[in-house]
Amino acid sequence: MRWALIGASRIAANYMIDAIRSVEGSTITAVLSSDAARGADYARTHGIAESYTDLDRMLAEAEIDAVYISTTNEKHHAEAMAAIAAGKHVMCEKPLAMTVADAAEMVRAAAEKGVVFGTNHHLRNAGTHLAIRDLIANGAIGNVLSARVFHAVNLPEVLRGWRIDNPGAGGGVIPDIVVHDADTVRFHLGEDPVEVVARQTVSGLGQGVEDSAMSIWEMPSGTMVQTHESFTHAFAETGIEFHGTKGSIVARGVMTQNPVGEVWLTDENGRKSVPYETHGLYERSMRLFHAAARGEGRPSADGVDGVKSLAVAMAVKAAADSGKAVAVDYGGF
Amino acid sequence: MRWALIGASRIAANYMIDAIRSVEGSTITAVLSSDAARGADYARTHGIAESYTDLDRMLAEAEIDAVYISTTNEKHHAEAMAAIAAGKHVMCEKPLAMTVADAAEMVRAAAEKGVVFGTNHHLRNAGTHLAIRDLIANGAIGNVLSARVFHAVNLPEVLRGWRIDNPGAGGGVIPDIVVHDADTVRFHLGEDPVEVVARQTVSGLGQGVEDSAMSIWEMPSGTMVQTHESFTHAFAETGIEFHGTKGSIVARGVMTQNPVGEVWLTDENGRKSVPYETHGLYERSMRLFHAAARGEGRPSADGVDGVKSLAVAMAVKAAADSGKAVAVDYGGF
Repeated sequence: MRWALIGASRIAANYMIDAIRSVEGSTITAVLSSDAARGADYARTHGIAESYTDLDRMLAEAEIDAVYISTTNEKHHAEAMAAIAAGKHVMCEKPLAMTVADAAEMVRAAAEKGVVFGTNHHLRNAGTHLAIRDLIANGAIGNVLSARVFHAVNLPEVLRGWRIDNPGAGGGVIPDIVVHDADTVRFHLGEDPVEVVARQTVSGLGQGVEDSAMSIWEMPSGTMVQTHESFTHAFAETGIEFHGTKGSIVARGVMTQNPVGEVWLTDENGRKSVPYETHGLYERSMRLFHAAARGEGRPSADGVDGVKSLAVAMAVKAAADSGKAVAVDYGGF
Repeated sequence: MRWALIGASRIAANYMIDAIRSVEGSTITAVLSSDAARGADYARTHGIAESYTDLDRMLAEAEIDAVYISTTNEKHHAEAMAAIAAGKHVMCEKPLAMTVADAAEMVRAAAEKGVVFGTNHHLRNAGTHLAIRDLIANGAIGNVLSARVFHAVNLPEVLRGWRIDNPGAGGGVIPDIVVHDADTVRFHLGEDPVEVVARQTVSGLGQGVEDSAMSIWEMPSGTMVQTHESFTHAFAETGIEFHGTKGSIVARGVMTQNPVGEVWLTDENGRKSVPYETHGLYERSMRLFHAAARGEGRPSADGVDGVKSLAVAMAVKAAADSGKAVAVDYGGF
């Protein structure tokens, strides 16, 4: 499969270029950047044949089967719609769009066109999370009473930019991180949050956007979920916990792009470490995406998953803004 | 100091009788129980000279300087007001009363009468919590950005009774446990929650009352607090965490009546275990109460602390009931 990168981004350079190329027969033939010099430089650095500044021209001229979209969030919708119209498969960064309606339109358009649409939620590809999901699915902790998600990190200096000062580009910790937590909890529990309450604040980084948030989600089964997301926590380990009637799963250092961290299961037999696979997260995501493009299975996180994670983040934002419980609107999905 | 127990309770038998007697010159001379046979049996078992069924008679006849109130919550107000009117010092179980107004009236009455009023919040007496508070006060973690309180436990079978089925007696996990979390966070941060959001549910035990709750509190400094309380979590360790600009404090197994648990500090120098004192929690509380009665210092948690912890719990309950952010009403304190 021949790929174009839409966005000469850091995440592509750090993770996705290698992940795409890790799949046999997969190449990256073009990159799009609004800045011609940056695009040309990026192409040279990463061994990509062509760089473009015009999306329509790239879609018309470049020999590509799929695009990976990692521009700022407000651009995703128009770029995805154009790529889908041109018959390209789409792997899109999260959050998919600025509104649930836009995201839903992208996902419906891909389905109508018959192209594969994936959302780049990496966490559900991690060996740690796959092990946790298997434990829950196999009844290791019985009925799940509660979940806790700790995703308060220190946003690296190089990633600050629009994430801490541009609401119009989708900045703020809620669009940036709550979507991952929503996708991960949905992945583990197999159900979608119904209603949320939340609070947000600025604790040192945010300029016009929130840099810290806490929320509580009610799941259809009655499971309660609490989350904490932040850009300003330099010493707080990430983690996720699931507490059930028969046991508890506690994981630390697992809300990350790398195959690391620790998982423990505590039940009536005591506490034990849980083994897990250490494959690359994005590599697994790409393998599944390519298989889906061949008609085998589905992407790790598909378009509907992307719509739903965005919907939860939008509800958290609305709840934090209003001080009121907000029902999650999944845009018809 | 000569004490009477108001309530032939399990907590008195398990902790407070020994704690009172651990203070030199302190004796327990009477116990009040609505059930004469139970009171007489309790007195015999615990070496208490007299048992009474009538509070006014006990206050008039028994030779006592102080009372420890550990009846069900709806009885505290009348019992405390009578004891204060009779000039007795009062150590009262939490929550102080069924309303903030009632609790405030008790505390104001004690101040007017010149008797000492303590609230039996044990956690701020724990060596673990004293060590944590010292770290925070000494700037070990810089400005505190967030706190997390994990107080989801498995309510022992013998304690279920009214706690899981009688809202009229103050049952439910919010009055029972949120008050402790509120007092502990206030103790560590030296400030009072301003506004809260919350959710509650029934997850296997509650009959007409909530048995699980999660809440988020906004502090005046901007510190965000998240809490989780439950009666139904058999495998979830308790814990408390404070995350700051210069470090994080993580403690596990510390939301308990016993001098146990672990505390770690993580900062730019890495992670290290924090040593702490292992004195009995209730013994320390009693030492400070007796000193206060001699005019030296104040109780570990005084009446105002009890009013404030109740106020936070009432706000959490109102927020969980309404789905709306609720400002904490401290009843004038």
